[in-house]
Amino acid sequence: MRLRHKPWAEDKLNEFPQYAIGNPEFYKGKWTTAFEKEQPLHIEIGSGKGRFITEMAKAHPDINYIGIEVYKSVIVSALDQLIEVDLPNVKLLNIDASDLGKFFEKNDVDRIYLNFSDPWPKTRHEKRRLTYKTFLDIYKHILKDNGEIHFKTDNQNLFEYSLMSFSLYGLLLKFISLDLHNSGFEGNIMTEYEEKFSNRGNRIYRCEVKY
Amino acid sequence: MRLRHKPWAEDKLNEFPQYAIGNPEFYKGKWTTAFEKEQPLHIEIGSGKGRFITEMAKAHPDINYIGIEVYKSVIVSALDQLIEVDLPNVKLLNIDASDLGKFFEKNDVDRIYLNFSDPWPKTRHEKRRLTYKTFLDIYKHILKDNGEIHFKTDNQNLFEYSLMSFSLYGLLLKFISLDLHNSGFEGNIMTEYEEKFSNRGNRIYRCEVKY
Repeated sequence: MRLRHKPWAEDKLNEFPQYAIGNPEFYKGKWTTAFEKEQPLHIEIGSGKGRFITEMAKAHPDINYIGIEVYKSVIVSALDQLIEVDLPNVKLLNIDASDLGKFFEKNDVDRIYLNFSDPWPKTRHEKRRLTYKTFLDIYKHILKDNGEIHFKTDNQNLFEYSLMSFSLYGLLLKFISLDLHNSGFEGNIMTEYEEKFSNRGNRIYRCEVKY
Repeated sequence: MRLRHKPWAEDKLNEFPQYAIGNPEFYKGKWTTAFEKEQPLHIEIGSGKGRFITEMAKAHPDINYIGIEVYKSVIVSALDQLIEVDLPNVKLLNIDASDLGKFFEKNDVDRIYLNFSDPWPKTRHEKRRLTYKTFLDIYKHILKDNGEIHFKTDNQNLFEYSLMSFSLYGLLLKFISLDLHNSGFEGNIMTEYEEKFSNRGNRIYRCEVKY
């Protein structure tokens, strides 16, 4: 997505620590204490403007959610949504995915969502793809045993790459749809990007894999 | 495919034992002796009218091929092609895939091709799909260690099902294309069915998995 620089974004995030966690190192190993209720934790890596994570939080009050987004100028849009609706079961976190291991411990997370991750199409950028093996290591490190990754994208090459990467890593492919919006899959919550690109006729690919 | 009954098919197969192997039990554990040259053996299960297997045999004279087809009235069309071109490295076999273990031993086969297999879309027919676990057992039993299955289809549901079945079985996904004819993949040899259905705009899915 194109980024518009918002110099005031950092101040705004600091202004709302009840939504945008400013001290994630404090919660390492005890993330349930950041929420009202002790219930499973699902995180979205690359949560963008936050539509997916806030809609999921509304639809599933029995799950705690954290939306993780590296760009301050993007995550503030998600913050605006939380300021408006005040959901008790969703928080935002402005960190880089490669730093997840600093702020989460084994068993902290029940499920990871990857939605329309940057495809990094050049071979020399393979290591930046969020389904590259070093990221799968990090996810393993913070997920519970049998924890799951739920991944969707409209990028065919990224999806092909990711299926091979998951297989090579030994993950179990529990579910796959090669055309999500024509599959009868229920309960799909669209991201901003998903709505835009599926309206242009792009297929959406989706899979669930288990450690 | 629609089957036209050809009552003379059996006689014709018996007439050409140099192409259509009539005594497969004899070759169990020594399939190289059925061919002129001792070289790797690739088999196609469901070879239909034989275009794929004969074109592969022409393109790869360093590989021996067996086209396996359960329908006599279909495999005679493949026989006609062999009568015409006399390829030393391809044979035909009129058996049911579930009987493969009767005629092949461990290490007999280097690679298995599954092309446009019957999707058997009803759940109660799952066991008939050639990528169901009991077939994966049979393939394991006759393949060399690290032997491969190369699978292509235009049937989205069968492809999704098969990827999950392969994963659950513990096979490694080495290669995948979700749109073979637009992928830059080189050396693809089309089946009769593939040409017809891709001309109608159907996507072709392809993968390679390894035991």
